[in-house]
Amino acid sequence: MVSDRENLAGSRFNCSVSERACFEAGIKMATIYHQFVGTPFCDRNVSDLERTIENCIRVQPYVLDAKVKIRRPDLDKEDQYSYTSLTGDMIDATVRISLDGTEVTAEMRYDAELRYPLMFISNIKKS
Amino acid sequence: MVSDRENLAGSRFNCSVSERACFEAGIKMATIYHQFVGTPFCDRNVSDLERTIENCIRVQPYVLDAKVKIRRPDLDKEDQYSYTSLTGDMIDATVRISLDGTEVTAEMRYDAELRYPLMFISNIKKS
Amino acid sequence: MVSDRENLAGSRFNCSVSERACFEAGIKMATIYHQFVGTPFCDRNVSDLERTIENCIRVQPYVLDAKVKIRRPDLDKEDQYSYTSLTGDMIDATVRISLDGTEVTAEMRYDAELRYPLMFISNIKKS
Amino acid sequence: MVSDRENLAGSRFNCSVSERACFEAGIKMATIYHQFVGTPFCDRNVSDLERTIENCIRVQPYVLDAKVKIRRPDLDKEDQYSYTSLTGDMIDATVRISLDGTEVTAEMRYDAELRYPLMFISNIKKS
Repeated sequence: MVSDRENLAGSRFNCSVSERACFEAGIKMATIYHQFVGTPFCDRNVSDLERTIENCIRVQPYVLDAKVKIRRPDLDKEDQYSYTSLTGDMIDATVRISLDGTEVTAEMRYDAELRYPLMFISNIKKS
Repeated sequence: MVSDRENLAGSRFNCSVSERACFEAGIKMATIYHQFVGTPFCDRNVSDLERTIENCIRVQPYVLDAKVKIRRPDLDKEDQYSYTSLTGDMIDATVRISLDGTEVTAEMRYDAELRYPLMFISNIKKS
Repeated sequence: MVSDRENLAGSRFNCSVSERACFEAGIKMATIYHQFVGTPFCDRNVSDLERTIENCIRVQPYVLDAKVKIRRPDLDKEDQYSYTSLTGDMIDATVRISLDGTEVTAEMRYDAELRYPLMFISNIKKS
Repeated sequence: MVSDRENLAGSRFNCSVSERACFEAGIKMATIYHQFVGTPFCDRNVSDLERTIENCIRVQPYVLDAKVKIRRPDLDKEDQYSYTSLTGDMIDATVRISLDGTEVTAEMRYDAELRYPLMFISNIKKS
């Protein structure tokens, strides 16, 4: 079921379904990065932070699934200053978008060869 | 037990214990606001988001406790566009700082009379 | 001229040029939103903030141009509390992506009919 | 001249003037950090970003002055991927708060001995 609001939103776009699905995937990737980079965490709340990022992405339009893994140094809370802040290089994420029968999978992770936290499209499945 | 690193950090400050505890409280208040404003959420993940903000604040230095309540319109996920983004006016937070026997309680909430999401110190207890 | 690093990055993608350009456009849109929502400003620094957001987006990959206009209430700095924080609904942005001869134009603005700050693709030009 | 709104805001606080000024200083420090960490920049827009952060902090309540210096690797824009994102360790900031005749100076910079981007109060001048 497509709501009236979804039809109205769709009418604003001037591109194909798969191009729009890729645009939506890009939005989600940069939301993960630019909303959450800087967040304080340590070992005891890192899983909680991963789940919350996933859940926040899942409420955005056309998200079928979101997986986030934070790759970080061990950070036991030993004294008041033993914790860290999330950086882009620590994020390993996969988001799947589903729009009008097209599924796009986008991924983000630090690419050692590029020395860059690359966001890319790994798969498009058109029905 | 105060660690060497905590002593070293303390040596950088040029003020009283209660002034430093108030400074630490201000840091935590603005972390809640400026890290998380903009986060997408709806009814089904709002409690999860509240808990995660609390847990992220608790890993910062000298936090005894943190409570966050998000005041928002009802937001059932009815279609792809029915969710919202966190704004400062929705945040109701209380953070308690404990430093060298001094406890500071800071609060943030939308103040209708001021028309402003005020952060303020509601209590200081010196031992 | 395409650098080795750009070729390497390109090899990670599994989609068409225009789909990748749309993905890049989505990244830039959400960077504007999730990086800058919450920023304090008033009349005297709003133009400065608009230019800085544009310049930050222009350093990201494949951006040909970026235009940002902040639609806000008049905010003279009359007392200490007379300023505001950027919200998504205030942002009016256009970003153009250029990748391998394809140009994508994406826009974001508050859509009164949708009651939502919609990000959308308004034009794709394939060479 | 103290406005009615400033008097009203002041009435919410339950602490001394200097404790409140330190609280305000802490808010500004964490605003710099948590609002702007993650922002994309390179050599050609770094000064512009520094000025904009200063100007955004200056519109917040009770700020007398703000200075921001970003310590970063040289980042000529040589290819599409040659830029960086602001991290806390790059920020060197000084903010001066003035409230009811009390001036508080707070600083933030990466402390090599602590291995931590410390925010601290370096001076309080009571009139």
